[in-house]
Amino acid sequence: MSALLRIVQLGLGPIGRESARLVARRAGLRLVGAVDNDPALEGRDVAELTGSPEAAGLKVESDLEEALSRLKPDVVLQTTGSRLSSVMDQIESVIAAKANLASTSEELFYPYRRHPKEAKRINAMALQHGVSVLGTGVNPGFAMDTLALCLSGVCREVRSVTIRRVVDAATRRGPLQKKVGAGLEPDEFRRRVARRELGHVGLVESLDLLAAALGLPVENVEETIEPVISEVALQTEYVSVAAGQVAGIHHTAVGRGAGGNLVSLDLKMYVGAPAPFDEVVLVGDPPVSNRVEGGIAGDAATAGILVNAAWAVCEAEPGLRTAIDMPLIRWRG
Amino acid sequence: MSALLRIVQLGLGPIGRESARLVARRAGLRLVGAVDNDPALEGRDVAELTGSPEAAGLKVESDLEEALSRLKPDVVLQTTGSRLSSVMDQIESVIAAKANLASTSEELFYPYRRHPKEAKRINAMALQHGVSVLGTGVNPGFAMDTLALCLSGVCREVRSVTIRRVVDAATRRGPLQKKVGAGLEPDEFRRRVARRELGHVGLVESLDLLAAALGLPVENVEETIEPVISEVALQTEYVSVAAGQVAGIHHTAVGRGAGGNLVSLDLKMYVGAPAPFDEVVLVGDPPVSNRVEGGIAGDAATAGILVNAAWAVCEAEPGLRTAIDMPLIRWRG
Repeated sequence: MSALLRIVQLGLGPIGRESARLVARRAGLRLVGAVDNDPALEGRDVAELTGSPEAAGLKVESDLEEALSRLKPDVVLQTTGSRLSSVMDQIESVIAAKANLASTSEELFYPYRRHPKEAKRINAMALQHGVSVLGTGVNPGFAMDTLALCLSGVCREVRSVTIRRVVDAATRRGPLQKKVGAGLEPDEFRRRVARRELGHVGLVESLDLLAAALGLPVENVEETIEPVISEVALQTEYVSVAAGQVAGIHHTAVGRGAGGNLVSLDLKMYVGAPAPFDEVVLVGDPPVSNRVEGGIAGDAATAGILVNAAWAVCEAEPGLRTAIDMPLIRWRG
Repeated sequence: MSALLRIVQLGLGPIGRESARLVARRAGLRLVGAVDNDPALEGRDVAELTGSPEAAGLKVESDLEEALSRLKPDVVLQTTGSRLSSVMDQIESVIAAKANLASTSEELFYPYRRHPKEAKRINAMALQHGVSVLGTGVNPGFAMDTLALCLSGVCREVRSVTIRRVVDAATRRGPLQKKVGAGLEPDEFRRRVARRELGHVGLVESLDLLAAALGLPVENVEETIEPVISEVALQTEYVSVAAGQVAGIHHTAVGRGAGGNLVSLDLKMYVGAPAPFDEVVLVGDPPVSNRVEGGIAGDAATAGILVNAAWAVCEAEPGLRTAIDMPLIRWRG
């Protein structure tokens, strides 16, 4: 695997720009193209847009299929949308161009339960064209799923899993601060939850992968989405939160079986969280209690794992892959 | 992968008996044989020896090749020795019988730097016979290597790794308490270190895998082995330690390059360690600070990961595999 991998960055929002910047300066990878369908970005200089002198000469393109057929990348890194419905066309184009795909689409991380038709279609196409497709990221992708699976490897038995993640949204990109509802009135927050406009996409995908991979007989999944109310006034680069307004979101997902709670996920993302952390507790034999102090830094780490996945999707067997049926994604210097 | 895997347990010391017990009661696995070359064990009832009623009717056998040719296992779980030189013949017999192998041989975990000839031979034989061979365990195998690699997946850069592990040897099997020197006089401890009779086999293998997998340019490796002296009298099921005697071992391995310390491993295993833990610190971007509270329980977890590896070695591509080029080893219920 010492050959230089040719990479196309698909999507140039905050995560995509960071991904492109990392690819441009990374040994073993070569940024050969950047695609985004935002007309405001078309023709923009990638070096300037991403702060990557190494990308000098590259312009943002808007025609994905044309770019793929001309550039023949080994891997496309996709950061264009959370929902499978919004990224499906792009995924099919990438597969048809015989490029491997790593994507931050949250629903792609484990689509088998909630989107079985799309999962089947992606897998069939990927097998047909001999490439692999992977949904990855930090959450879903690592902090609330893969890390726990890795830890479960040392257990003689796992009876249940409890994972807690606390994120200080003030350290995250602007779109995420808005996504967690920071600055809303509590009533407006609840209305948006009722309209399904708020909530962390991917929490249930983490739960689905955990249940399937650990063989935990989850029968039903229940979610709650509540606001975290700020007791003080807070100001970030992107939002203002008055005392009594919403600082962010508290989203839980619990998978239950006959034996009680089998998978419990508890995610708080709010502006001003004083002590972020990631905690995995495996109830089993031996029990495992793991904690990442300070938590896994969201946006930086999401771009990090996406780019680190470039090698893994090339080494993986063709098909729709998940964190459990491919080589470990790791830093490679 | 829903077919029942046929397992032969090779080695019936404390870890091997526990492994056999786990296999016997595990859904998806079937214990079809148990082999040990200790004449005192030959013909012993496996059910009685391992406390596994499920193994009723199985007797311990001494002839590995005969057992393999009759039983045709999918996987052999080997717990017979730390040194590659002492397990090489068995490994070759297992491969020749077209069985996959997971082994707790510490030197097999990453043999490429210290035993390149054996590594090459195992890989060639495994490719020839279409099976995979894996060294696994907790240390080496997980706590001071694979867990850190898993965590590195979220980094945009890793500059160095520091891992600390503290084990209360009183919670471990008798042979291990003796291996760490508990109950020795400090002078005797140092004499045995000088004769290379004391020290944790596998620490350097963890370092070698980390350096190779993370691409850290380690130029030289230095080890230190010192006694941990007990300030009080201690008594376990297996050893007595007077105040001033050795409670256990403090073994470090540091890999240095031009930029300083790149991989630092610090292992303390001693009777009476008050607060065991496993800690991984990745110096990088973002930095990662991870801690398993209470540590990963040695013997139980070693048997656990060995048995969990049974599926992974069947799914892996043929050849000599390591933690980084095969699917994640996980609990499967």
